[in-house]
Amino acid sequence: MQRVTIDLGARSYPILIGPGLLDDGQALAEAVPARDVMVVTNEIVGPLYLDRLVRGLQGRRVETVLLPDGERHKTLETAGRILDAMVAARMNRDACVVALGGGVVGDVAGFAAACYQRGVDFVQVPTTLLAQVDSSVGGKTGVNHPGGKNLIGAFHQPRAVVSDTETLRSLPVRELRAGLAEVIKYGLVADLAFLGWLESNLAALLALEPAAVAHAVRRCCEIKAAIVAADEREHGARALLNLGHTFGHAIEAAAGYGEWLHGEAVGVGMLMAADLSRHLGWLGAADVERVRDLLHRAGLPSSAPPIGAARALELMAMDKKVLAGRIRLVLLARLGEGVVSGDCPAQALRETLSSHFGSGT
Amino acid sequence: MQRVTIDLGARSYPILIGPGLLDDGQALAEAVPARDVMVVTNEIVGPLYLDRLVRGLQGRRVETVLLPDGERHKTLETAGRILDAMVAARMNRDACVVALGGGVVGDVAGFAAACYQRGVDFVQVPTTLLAQVDSSVGGKTGVNHPGGKNLIGAFHQPRAVVSDTETLRSLPVRELRAGLAEVIKYGLVADLAFLGWLESNLAALLALEPAAVAHAVRRCCEIKAAIVAADEREHGARALLNLGHTFGHAIEAAAGYGEWLHGEAVGVGMLMAADLSRHLGWLGAADVERVRDLLHRAGLPSSAPPIGAARALELMAMDKKVLAGRIRLVLLARLGEGVVSGDCPAQALRETLSSHFGSGT
Repeated sequence: MQRVTIDLGARSYPILIGPGLLDDGQALAEAVPARDVMVVTNEIVGPLYLDRLVRGLQGRRVETVLLPDGERHKTLETAGRILDAMVAARMNRDACVVALGGGVVGDVAGFAAACYQRGVDFVQVPTTLLAQVDSSVGGKTGVNHPGGKNLIGAFHQPRAVVSDTETLRSLPVRELRAGLAEVIKYGLVADLAFLGWLESNLAALLALEPAAVAHAVRRCCEIKAAIVAADEREHGARALLNLGHTFGHAIEAAAGYGEWLHGEAVGVGMLMAADLSRHLGWLGAADVERVRDLLHRAGLPSSAPPIGAARALELMAMDKKVLAGRIRLVLLARLGEGVVSGDCPAQALRETLSSHFGSGT
Repeated sequence: MQRVTIDLGARSYPILIGPGLLDDGQALAEAVPARDVMVVTNEIVGPLYLDRLVRGLQGRRVETVLLPDGERHKTLETAGRILDAMVAARMNRDACVVALGGGVVGDVAGFAAACYQRGVDFVQVPTTLLAQVDSSVGGKTGVNHPGGKNLIGAFHQPRAVVSDTETLRSLPVRELRAGLAEVIKYGLVADLAFLGWLESNLAALLALEPAAVAHAVRRCCEIKAAIVAADEREHGARALLNLGHTFGHAIEAAAGYGEWLHGEAVGVGMLMAADLSRHLGWLGAADVERVRDLLHRAGLPSSAPPIGAARALELMAMDKKVLAGRIRLVLLARLGEGVVSGDCPAQALRETLSSHFGSGT
């Protein structure tokens, strides 16, 4: 078992990473000391892992909520269902919500934990690559609104993250590939050496070789831990983790949530960010090709839907990352070094949008 | 204008208290620096004060949401309406929610501000005595659930509180009296001298004499400021502010939210807490009579509805303040000194409940 610590003073917490942690009563006892536990999972993950998790939590009162699968259920209503279940079970302030599943389950369960009695403990047990390397770590929770993704939410740090890397074996290959987009993101914004490691070990990751998976999950969590510790509430450096996300949100919103996987949209978005960085003279053409090649080898799409630049810009303007009407984009000063830009030249942005989204509808 | 500061490090904020602050552009400019403002009010308060507030906020983009009046609308759905309005107005992370009204408006608007894009600025403009002395200060926000009051919520500190004491002139006398229950609470748990001042100045307060009102609002805010600064998230001392609230919640829940005003239920609850403290030998019979007399002179009810002790206990057990199945009560070690008790003898509690709620249904 490997361990990464998110250093947030009194709210610091461990990320436990390794194969078979779902059956590791000792690890679970450390992560979930509460007596009353509400496990939130979904209809896909539940049948695979819920029994094992509940067995691992023996000695506690464990209640469960089974959510429907999919991003379109990441709503205020679904969070309300979890809250209803907690009230029905008469859970108190010392209860703990455990999220067993991917990013959607973690986001909505974490938001319910943040809101129940103004905040109860919360533990993430991520079962997708995306959740293990990204969404389970850092305390962002929330739900979507018809007007935009994650518009409703809270910062609510988990008290532990338990990443059983064996659970990735049940992941559909499309979701594994989508998770790799976020893995590649860490290399692009923060660690050129890790980017090189990924280029050399992509096949091993896709084959889920245990050592490769453990290294990748650990390295991503280490990078995220350092960034979150420096900027918990995303006033500055944390925004780097949004590389590709503003473009990606436009893709997801235009297609309707759930058509594109989040990681797929982020992958195309990162390519667009690289392209825009080239427009600004920060990356060379060879750098952009290196990004495109890695995304391609990971089996990720590289073309945005032809929604037109104007519509894309409109959707991007609704993104949370817009401040005072100005779109802030994460770009690349070079490979391995992200930079937040609040004053990207409009002409360069327009050209990038047109070349990827098409020029009109 | 008087000023009390809530000292919470980076989240410190001022409470501005005085007559006519709604027309004081300078005070409002200090409290609300944001460019985009969402004013939340209700159908009773809005017609009285909204125009003046909007005029005072000139130069900004101001949108408004008008909620129906009453505790029964303090729901997740109502919070959702505010969130919908903010999305529709395309407000960003730098927006500010301003709550113009009493405790219900402040609680639900504050919760919406806490959730919108994981938290935006929030300013309280309380127009009831209860809100000016209690609910607007300290960062507790939330909504009710059919299973219990304030079961859903967040700690989200305002960036300022603007208490125009003249607005109390439009308050129905029943609400003024209910607000006095919370004023009396501060004397009982924390300040015997203030309790004495209240006994001497109750008539002046009921007549809304400006100097008396300003002194009472200021002193309550000072006491609350000290307690909140020491214990923002209610792990300890802050629970003292719940004197009478656990009993009171049972009354409110049994009667259906809105039948009893919160302050009325708290008033009876404080009398029960005093009575129980006498059972434990902490107060004398004369002390309890002093509490009863002051509540009576404030025009507050002193009898609980006859729901029976068993039902009352059941409702109290659903209160948020229950930890690990044990009811924690705020009692009085003496007048002017509250104490949180997690191990109140069951027999004394039963007797107190029976004598106030009746022994059965």
